[in-house]
Amino acid sequence: MEKIQALRQQVDEVNEHILQSLNARAALIKQIRELKDKVSSDYFDPEREEEMLRNIIEKNEGPLSGKMIGDIFNHIFKVNLEFMGISHEKLPLV
Amino acid sequence: MEKIQALRQQVDEVNEHILQSLNARAALIKQIRELKDKVSSDYFDPEREEEMLRNIIEKNEGPLSGKMIGDIFNHIFKVNLEFMGISHEKLPLV
Repeated sequence: MEKIQALRQQVDEVNEHILQSLNARAALIKQIRELKDKVSSDYFDPEREEEMLRNIIEKNEGPLSGKMIGDIFNHIFKVNLEFMGISHEKLPLV
Repeated sequence: MEKIQALRQQVDEVNEHILQSLNARAALIKQIRELKDKVSSDYFDPEREEEMLRNIIEKNEGPLSGKMIGDIFNHIFKVNLEFMGISHEKLPLV
């Protein structure tokens, strides 16, 4: 059980990394959007999301499958649109 | 546009961190499950998920809201159950 406890602590640490990365990601996307606001009204870029997803899945070495990773990242993209105040209902699902 | 390019590169780097963290997390959870297999048949621990979620949201400093972070982590938990071959349909939604 001590081993389980130690592994759980590692999971907590990884959770915290993911938390920080998700927030850092949202802050970056917000900056990009602010810069884009100045040059165009093209807020949402589905091609960019597809490209990101391709890159991510290409780099994936498991144990999670490409489908699983894609599933999680699509959810991250969706929440990010929500964060930016963009309704994803109107948008194509990437 | 160069600034946008630089920010996009940073997003790619954060994506890669998230990718690595998700896989590291899945590998740890798999180890915990293997240890648990030896001591009990209690594979899924909804209380542990709730505890993790509470910890994560408590540590959240934004810009994503607690609800958004919770939403993403619930999705990560769901995909992890899938990875472990546990149907989440039978399980309570955390």
